[in-house]
Order: sequence, then structure tokens, then C-alpha cells
Amino acid sequence: MIRILTLATSAIALAGCATADAGSVVGTTTPAASDEKPAPDTMRWLYGSGEAAGASIQTWRQIADYAIAISRQRKVPQSVPLGLPAVDGGIGTPSCIKADGTTKPFAAVFDVDETVLLNTGYEYWQALTGKPFDADEWKQWADNGAGIAQPVPGAVTGLRRLREAGIAVIFNTNRNSDTAAGTIAALEAAGAGPAVHLESLFLRGDDDMGGRKDGRRATIAESHCVIAMAGDNLGDFADVFNADESAIAARRAMVARGEYAQLWGNGWFLMPNPVYGAWQHGNVGEVFPPEARWKPSPSDAPLTMGQQ
Amino acid sequence: MIRILTLATSAIALAGCATADAGSVVGTTTPAASDEKPAPDTMRWLYGSGEAAGASIQTWRQIADYAIAISRQRKVPQSVPLGLPAVDGGIGTPSCIKADGTTKPFAAVFDVDETVLLNTGYEYWQALTGKPFDADEWKQWADNGAGIAQPVPGAVTGLRRLREAGIAVIFNTNRNSDTAAGTIAALEAAGAGPAVHLESLFLRGDDDMGGRKDGRRATIAESHCVIAMAGDNLGDFADVFNADESAIAARRAMVARGEYAQLWGNGWFLMPNPVYGAWQHGNVGEVFPPEARWKPSPSDAPLTMGQQ
Repeated sequence: MIRILTLATSAIALAGCATADAGSVVGTTTPAASDEKPAPDTMRWLYGSGEAAGASIQTWRQIADYAIAISRQRKVPQSVPLGLPAVDGGIGTPSCIKADGTTKPFAAVFDVDETVLLNTGYEYWQALTGKPFDADEWKQWADNGAGIAQPVPGAVTGLRRLREAGIAVIFNTNRNSDTAAGTIAALEAAGAGPAVHLESLFLRGDDDMGGRKDGRRATIAESHCVIAMAGDNLGDFADVFNADESAIAARRAMVARGEYAQLWGNGWFLMPNPVYGAWQHGNVGEVFPPEARWKPSPSDAPLTMGQQ
Repeated sequence: MIRILTLATSAIALAGCATADAGSVVGTTTPAASDEKPAPDTMRWLYGSGEAAGASIQTWRQIADYAIAISRQRKVPQSVPLGLPAVDGGIGTPSCIKADGTTKPFAAVFDVDETVLLNTGYEYWQALTGKPFDADEWKQWADNGAGIAQPVPGAVTGLRRLREAGIAVIFNTNRNSDTAAGTIAALEAAGAGPAVHLESLFLRGDDDMGGRKDGRRATIAESHCVIAMAGDNLGDFADVFNADESAIAARRAMVARGEYAQLWGNGWFLMPNPVYGAWQHGNVGEVFPPEARWKPSPSDAPLTMGQQ
């Protein structure tokens, strides 16, 4: 996902512990000095760690293994749930059979940012300056980041394997539709292309549903049998998850039970991204469920209460 | 992993933006008020988000699917690399054949903290107080956290599937060996047990290699054919990755190329944990590689340089 929908919370997080100094960032900041600032832990993990690289490679392997195996099954193909309501309630699964009785071609649908491309360039600028999210700067990055934006580790190999198996690769991103040319260029420069707007690339603004992706998923499912989806945000799978972003515990519980729990690693694939997202809010009391809280015993502590 | 080896950096990160007030945390802090503090983004993601729950469930499914498929192959089994040097260089793969020619029983080897158990209890205490890591408090948690420590989403199902397929589940953790009883109780209360010290549970202090796990892996491989390993830190797979923790870019590059890249999702499985770890250091200049940096163009910015 990108952060368009979560401006306020992203700004808080990306500013981190640094004091934003927005008035001096262009022209007067000395990058050499600012490079010495501690990086936020979220960015250290996602952009700097071997752990995140291993996690990404393993998930891209899982996606390709899964989708290729499904594409080779002899039984009538079935779409993964795409976030659309089912006639009988629950989550809907569009038909993979055309009106003429033939089968739609297979597709795998991917978010772009922090799923296929790492926005290291833009995030570097935020880490360097401590500036909050800036829509104009983000648009510059989306338009001009080609060649700087790196692929998520494992994505290039995973996408190549899918295409070689005859599975169409379709991108469904919340980058704005006026950045289509820059986004296509960035995907191709990173080795993740090709992408063609409104054929294999769908963006925010392609319909009137804003950042909600269910409508674009329905459009894709008209022409394709979607056998796998991947993204870093729950909205990349079904809009229902983000219908009430304030419901932290309920949102987490929803994905981990019932029919949704059966989909993770089984048609739906989550790329880890702790840098930004719809989850990025909540205080200590909201994030930690009451039954999982703990305190050390004062009597076992090295200092007694009286000594403090 | 646990944070024993990374005291200094963990303390910085866990303190976050809060001012540590270590002198007043026991007895005088009002938890109701402190619960209103913003939670760190790392904890919001790992402990509070549906995204992390989905990622964990998918990786536990991947582990069980992979290991069960390997255990059913008819060919002579082969261990995954365990971090031991190979005779001809590279990474070694212990034999799965006993001296008498029979095959060793299959095993899957798991780290404990943030791989099988979520330390929500202890991390709540740190988020609440802003205190840095405290070894005495951590020992209390390791001894007494049973029933509060929650399983990582997907772990209970994954471990059950492995055991039902006849694959031994063995834990290799850097909790100290004097917490064995508490760790066993916590695993069992979370539905992840059973565990027996020095049979299916190995801890820091069981040998003289400190937090390095290669020796414990070699011990496990004497009696078992290890077909899968999972952890949240690169040290859960091979000590070589953490030999020079300061080498941020080199450490990330090492896991993503050559023989190591082939192992992620293919015998080695990484559980995402952005809250703490050996990766938790580095300034902006160290975390963002030079070729991936970007700045907005001043001429395209809404304010010109002169206006600032």
C-alpha cells in the first residue's frame, strides 16, 4: 500500500523521535551530518536487515510455488476470495468460467509499494529530514523514482516464475492514476515489469472508490481467474478489514479466525511492512490485550519499593 | 531470539521516544495513565496488527507444508544446513544416516521468542514504563510468564501438524538454562508443548558457546535429521550471519544471494520481528544504501528555495 489514506498517523511515525525541521530541508540541510542520525527501527528492519530480506524471499517463493501448483491442477479452477461480498454472506469468490463456458486466464494480483518495490528512496528522504509525509514529494518520487526504487528481495524471481508458467501478473496499487507512467517505469527498471495501465496495472483514481480496492479487484476478475493475491496491507485483500481502522484488537482477531485464517499462505500472501500502514495507530492500552499484560513482582526486583 | 546479546541497542529502541522514568515504575506509576501513551510502531505492527497475524499464519502454514512434504519423500533424507562449516567450505549439511545405516528421526527446530511465543507481557511492561531491557525483569518473565505469553498466530496449528506427521519438534532458544522450567510451562500453557530440557529444548548455557547456536544445532543433528528450522533472527539459522553485526549492508546482502538465498522458504523460515534483534542498530547512512537514496527536486517543490 501507500500512505495516502493514513496521512496523520504516518506523519507521526515517520517523524519518529526526530524534530521535524521542514523549513530548512531543501538547500540548507547538510546530508552528511543528517546521515549520522539513528534510523528508525522500522526502517532498520525493513530496509536494512537480512531478516527482512529472508522473510521477503521466502514469501515470494511461497507465492510462486503456490500459484504454479494451482495453475497445473486439472480440476476446474477457482478464484481466491477478492473481498467481494458473497451471495450467502461471507467473502465472495468470483467465477473463473466465462459466459461461453471457457476458462478465464490465470492471474496473480499484487500491490506495488513494499510488496514489489521498496520505496527506499523516498523513505531515505523522510529518515534524513524527519519531515512528515508530503503528497507533493511523494508524487515526485512516484513519477521519477525509476532506477532508484529497488525490488523487494525475491520479487523479480517470483514474478519471472509466474509469467513463465503462463500466469498473468497484475498490479493493483493506491498510487494515483496520474503517476501511471512513472510507476510503469519504476516497475520495469526494477525488473518487475512489464505493466500496462488498465490492463495489468490499476491505480487509485481508475474508479470512484478512492483507496478501496474491491472495485478494481472485481474489474480484474471479469477477465481473469485470480489464483493468488499479495500485499503488505489488509486492504490489499479485502476492504472489509479496513472498514473500522480504530478497532485494533477486532481487526487482528478477524484475520486470524475462520475462513480468513485459512487463506494466509493459501491464496493470500502478506509481505511484512512495519514502516507504515493502516495499523499505524493506537496507544499501549489499545495495542496490548488485557489478558497478555504482565508486570514484574516488586518483591523480586533488585530494589524494594522502599528504596525507590 | 531474545535480546540478551543486544542490550545496548535494545535499550535505545525499547525506550523509544518516551523518557525513561526508572525510579518510579514500581509502585508509583499509574498504569491507567500510562496506557494512553502511543505504542511504538514496531509493537503496533507485531503485537497489534492483523497484517502481522496474517504473515505469521502464512509462514507457519509454509513450515508445516514444507516439512511434511519432505518427510514423505521416498529418497534418502537430507538435513537442511545448520550453520556448520562444510568440509569444502560454505555451509555444512549433517548426515541423516546413523552409523548403523538407519535413518535418524525427522525434526524441525524452532527458536522460541517471537517465533513460537509472543512476549506481549514483557513488552507491555516495557512499552508502559519506557524502561530499557532489564535482565532481572526478563528472568522473572521467563520464569513466570506461563499462561500470559500468547502463541505466535499459526504456531499451535503448525506444531500440531508437524507432530501428527511424526516430525519431532525441538526448541533452541537463547533464554538462559536456569529458566528451563518456566519456559517449558510457558510453551505448554500456550499450546506449543511438550518440551523436555536437553531432549526437545536447548537453552543458552547448555554448552559453552553463549548465545551462539551452532553447537546446539550440532548436538540436535547427532540424533535427528533436521528438515526445517525457523526463527526471527539470522542467528537462529547460522552463527556466521551475526559474526559482524556492524556490517549492515553486507549482512543483508549475504542472506539474499547464492546458497543462502535458496534456503528461505525452502528449509529455513523467518518469522518477522521488527521489535528487537541483532539488526537493531545503524544510522540513516548505514541503513540506506547510496544507490537507493533520493531527494525531491527543489524546483518542483511547492516552495522555492528563496521562499525558505
